[in-house]
Order: sequence, then C-alpha cells, then structure tokens
Amino acid sequence: MFSERMNNVKSSAIRDILKIISKPGMISLAGGLPAPELFPVDAVKKAAERVLTKFGAEALQYSFTEGIPALREKIAEQLNRSAGGLTIDNVLITQGSQQGLDLIAKVFINKGSLVMTENPSYLGALQAFQLFEAAIEPIPSDSHGILVPVLRERLKKHKPVFLYIMPNFQNPTGIAYPLDRRRELVAAAREHDVLIVEDDPYGELIFEGERLPTLFSLAGGRNVVRMTTFSKTIAPGLRIASVAADQELIKKLVIAKQATDLHTNSFGQYLVLEYLESGGYEEHIARIRQTYRERRDVMLAAMEQWFPESVTWNKPAGGMFFWVMLPASWDAAEILLKCIEHNVAFVPGREFFPDGSGKNTLRLNFSNAAPQYIEEGIRRMGEVFKTLS
Amino acid sequence: MFSERMNNVKSSAIRDILKIISKPGMISLAGGLPAPELFPVDAVKKAAERVLTKFGAEALQYSFTEGIPALREKIAEQLNRSAGGLTIDNVLITQGSQQGLDLIAKVFINKGSLVMTENPSYLGALQAFQLFEAAIEPIPSDSHGILVPVLRERLKKHKPVFLYIMPNFQNPTGIAYPLDRRRELVAAAREHDVLIVEDDPYGELIFEGERLPTLFSLAGGRNVVRMTTFSKTIAPGLRIASVAADQELIKKLVIAKQATDLHTNSFGQYLVLEYLESGGYEEHIARIRQTYRERRDVMLAAMEQWFPESVTWNKPAGGMFFWVMLPASWDAAEILLKCIEHNVAFVPGREFFPDGSGKNTLRLNFSNAAPQYIEEGIRRMGEVFKTLS
Repeated sequence: MFSERMNNVKSSAIRDILKIISKPGMISLAGGLPAPELFPVDAVKKAAERVLTKFGAEALQYSFTEGIPALREKIAEQLNRSAGGLTIDNVLITQGSQQGLDLIAKVFINKGSLVMTENPSYLGALQAFQLFEAAIEPIPSDSHGILVPVLRERLKKHKPVFLYIMPNFQNPTGIAYPLDRRRELVAAAREHDVLIVEDDPYGELIFEGERLPTLFSLAGGRNVVRMTTFSKTIAPGLRIASVAADQELIKKLVIAKQATDLHTNSFGQYLVLEYLESGGYEEHIARIRQTYRERRDVMLAAMEQWFPESVTWNKPAGGMFFWVMLPASWDAAEILLKCIEHNVAFVPGREFFPDGSGKNTLRLNFSNAAPQYIEEGIRRMGEVFKTLS
Repeated sequence: MFSERMNNVKSSAIRDILKIISKPGMISLAGGLPAPELFPVDAVKKAAERVLTKFGAEALQYSFTEGIPALREKIAEQLNRSAGGLTIDNVLITQGSQQGLDLIAKVFINKGSLVMTENPSYLGALQAFQLFEAAIEPIPSDSHGILVPVLRERLKKHKPVFLYIMPNFQNPTGIAYPLDRRRELVAAAREHDVLIVEDDPYGELIFEGERLPTLFSLAGGRNVVRMTTFSKTIAPGLRIASVAADQELIKKLVIAKQATDLHTNSFGQYLVLEYLESGGYEEHIARIRQTYRERRDVMLAAMEQWFPESVTWNKPAGGMFFWVMLPASWDAAEILLKCIEHNVAFVPGREFFPDGSGKNTLRLNFSNAAPQYIEEGIRRMGEVFKTLS
C-alpha cells in the first residue's frame, strides 16, 4: 500500500525519545535544542512590528521560490568574506537545513545511488538520504574527521553522487576538522570529481581557536554545496536556512523546491533579514558562544567528577554536543532505560552509525539545559554507570 | 549527474511567467495570488506581539513534527462539523498544501506508480507527482467534475495509488462538484478501494449557493485524505496548511515529514492559532468572499463586453479563476506573447493538461487585481483577440 521508500526510513529515535522524556522531573541531555532563554524574543517582536509596518502585505504574500532577494544577498555577502565572486544566484533559502538535505536528495539520488558519509553522521541527513533509497557508505573517521586515505581507496572503487560532511563540531561527535584535514579532503574530492555537501549548522558556535576556512572556500566554490542555518544563531522555529552552490545546481534545487513547498515562509525570511540589519547580531552570537562554552565546561567538570575512568569523551571546541565512549561491553540503549528511571536522558550513539556499530557510544547535549541541571543530570548518569562498573 | 526524477519535472511555467511579467505597466491576470490588500496585516502584527508575550521562546523553538497541538485541535474541530470523531491524531500541519502533496507523493508513489487526476488539474500537484516519477492518468472531466462512468471503466483496468481531486472551484477551471457527482465519485472510489486525495484550498471562498459536504465527510473519513490551507483565508506567506486522514496514514506522513523539514515553522503556526482565536476570522472570510465576488462580476462583465462571441468561459461560484475556451484553432501560448506586448498576461491552459491537450484554453485570475485593472486587462486581451478573429 505504501511506497517502497517508506520501508527504508523509520521514525527518528531522537524525536521519539524527546516525546517520552517530557515527563516532569526529567533532565534531558538528549535533544539538539538551542538554549531558548537566549532567543532574541524582544528583538523578534520588534522586527515583526517593523517588517509589517515597512513591507505590509508583501511580507505575508506568496514569494520567490529562491527566497527573498535581500536575504539571499546578505548570505552571499557573508560567503564572499571567505570565497569571492558569489551573487544571489548562488543562494537558495530553504525551510531549515533539513529541507536543504531533502532537496539535495531529490536532485541527486536515484534508488540505490551511493552516498558517502562520516561514521557516525547526522541522523536527519541519513533519514533524508534513506527516504530516497540511497545506499549509504560510511567512511571511517577519527577525532579529526573522515580518514582521507581510506576515502581515496573507496573512491577508486566507486564514485558516490556526493560526500556528506559536517566539518565544524559535528553532530553527534562534536569534532572539528583541522585545516590540514580539510585541505586533504578537498584535494581528494577534486581529484575524483566528487561533490561535497558541506553541512555547517554549528560553525558560528565556536568557543576557542580560530575559525577555519570552509570546505566551500577551500574548493573555490567548485563542486561543493554549502549549507548554513539561522536555527542555532537566531531561532529554529522560523525555519530559515540556506544552500549555496554554483548557479546550475541552484537552478535544479529551485525546480525541486517549487514542487516541494513553492517557497520558504516569507514572514520568517523578512524577520531574519530585519534582525540581521538591526545591528545586534554579532553581539548576540557572542553571548551564545559564551553561554554554551560555560555549559560545556560545567558538563566536562561533572563528567570528570561523576563518570568512572572507563568512560571517556572528547572535548568539543564548539557546537552543542559531547560524544561519550563507554566500555566496549556496555550497551547505551539499555543504559538509557535505566537512566530514564533515574530521570535523566541522552541519545544512544548507534542511531548515528550507518554501519550499525557504536553500541557503546552516546551523545550528550550541553546547550539546552541550565548548568545546575547539567551537573545533576551527569551525577545521575554517574550513579547508573556505578552499578555497571 | 542529476537524478532521473529531475528529467520528469520542469520549472513551473506559471512561476516563470510571473517573473517575466513584473515589468511596469503590466496587468497580470496570470498568478494565483490572493488580494494582498485583504491580508489582516494589523491583526498579524497584534498576534505577533501577543504570541511572543504569551509563549515567548517556545514560539521560536523546535517543535513537534505533527504541528502545534492546539492548532491541530482547532482543525480537528472544524472537520468535526461535517465528519465526526476526529482528534488531533488525524491532523498534520504542513508547510503549505504544496508540502502536503510532496509528503503524499513520498508515502505512496514508487517510480511508475499510477496516479489519476482530473483533466485539467492543478499544475503544482502534477509537478509534485512527476518529481516522484508517477505515471499520471488524467480522467476526462465536464463542467461538474470528473466523469465517474469513465473513471469506473479505468478503475476496472488498473488501480491507481490515489485519485487526486479538487472538488471546490478547481484550479484551473473554477468548477465545483455538485452533490450528486460527489456522491457518485465517493461510491466509485469505495467500490474499487481507491484512496482519494481531496485538495480543497478554495472551499471557503464561496460566493453563492450552499457549501456542499466534503468528499472526506461523504466517505466518513475512510480512504480520503483532506487537504486545507490558510493561504487563501489568512496569508500564504506564513505557509500553514493541514492534511487530515486516518491515524495510520498520518503516522506515515509524519515519518516522511521528519526527513523532509523536521517540522512546520512554529511562529507561523502560533500566529494562525492566535488569529483564529481572536474572533475576527469569520468576518474576515466574509469580506474576502464579497471582494472576490465583485471582482468575478467585473471580469465577467468585461469579458461579455470585450471578448468576441467565439470565446467562451465558465462562471465560477467561488474561488479565484475563470477558465476561458478560445476557438479550436487558436494557441493560447502564442496569444500570450501578443498579450504581453499589450501589457496584459494570463496562464495558457495547456500546462494544466497531463495529456497535452488544451492548447486553446487559458486561465484568468480575478482575486489579485483591483477592478479597474481587471476591466482594462480584459479590454487589452479583447483587442488582441480582435486581431485574430
């Protein structure tokens, strides 16, 4: 009765967990939600007033599939700081980055098409590609990103329709590619003429060190699709994100988007544009960075205090997640059930591994909960871990 | 390089025409845009203020894939006025009705799956189905809708994954199904166990006569998906619409939507909810009905005055479109080029026919232009027609 593709995709375990754990007293370190107390609610209120006064009905009418020109121009300007020569014709506004993934899947994936990803990789991307019946080939990764020599070996055997990479503070691992790894990756992709889909929702949320060049800029904008979003820097509920690519590809994505939802919600686009032009944006990002950095440090200190030595983790330099490695014999999905009894939740890591490994890994979010809850949540997890050691 | 499905779909001729005709002095009767001067701009402004005061960051945070519960409940209540027993679990909020079509296509269409439609049918629906490589079989229609005896013959031969119907003031023809045709259609679909996708964006825009039962209510909610939208009654730029169906199907659509865009923009949903609760909605719809009715009548009188006798049309009892039949030897696409020289535009009808017929038909929109422009636009078209007679 239903299409074959529906056999290929199941409901997101994360969104299902988020529903279960909404009971009172639960401390959730499971979601990937930004801190709502940092949302610029008053600024959005003012922006709504100004947008409707300035643009009136235009802000509520049907609009261009490509997005509002002034917003596309702003995004092109941002991109031009690292890669030159881009115009609004290189930019498409999407209904959140998840829609960018859906459109890219539509434009590139036939049934059985090969897509290469990091291992582990972002669950929402895996879902989007699986819905279009892609064959996913995960490439082994270390703490600096995908292993480029392994990638080269695989590319010699077969060429994917694209390679999906999250270079900054990856979801779920929090890792960031150092400059040399970025260069190696871009060089390998260029040699094998492989398109890179660079998904960068967290790049702005950097706590220490310098911002590194994007894959898009390292490749001179050639054969790289760059996805960014305002979900983590302004507010996710507006669903405003963008895809940047060469004009030919943008045209294809626009045709796919016409059939998908006609255009991204106009009012949200005008609100983002108004907010960007109001001048408080940089200061606002700085505040997010500082808050998230503090929360990361609180979580780090709590893990050092409460987790047994057999449990290890990375230390992310930005983003929203810690990635935790449990002893090899532990099963994070089973431990989650015990943790939920102790009123604390996380996401088991296996969901993120296209190859089904990662049973003993888990993802912790530090952006959404207040410091005292982070501390108490980690303490509760530590208690459960003690019963297992 | 691109997926096979991209060969199946081209850029919407309508959206392309809309770009060309934005030059000054042009009178466009081409689009399908509601009248922006009727948008409740002040009410939305107030609603934005109230929503952000009442709900704060929650209105800007990630939200449920299904949509905001209070809005789903409101829609379930509306549906219960004609078909009883529905709950929020029967309702999914979508990013405009176009997304409803995309999700339905995802859930039902394999490459080559048969979809039956009216002939002509809504271009955006044809695009959405073609992107998923459906085989479209148009069923002949008369001025009361699809010819049910022909449909029955076709259904004996092969069963489609669904039958796509726009029962009220169809886009492009403006026709509405009378009650007996609705009953016949629902009976035929039930006998052959065929799912009906009932797309009803214009049902509220009724100028005369009584509102007739929906296909959804006539079928007791069984094997019918009902799509409605706030695009024509509040504002399209918010992109808030809904799909109602049995719970099993809603669950499948939700899984597809997770992978498609996570969820519909939260702020827009809260704005619609706040507006619906503010009490002015019914009065607002009444004003839209009155304005569009006047514009329909202005267009009708102008066509009677300026069009030659060889040109005929329907008289729609609601919605936004007139459907015009030219003499058999005329080609509306060629005439459009001449009309654009005379600073008036419409949509050639052939785009709407899956079977490639309809060369001598065209669609006129009367909702978007002020009466004096409608009159002048029809006069200009009449001048072009005169050179052809």
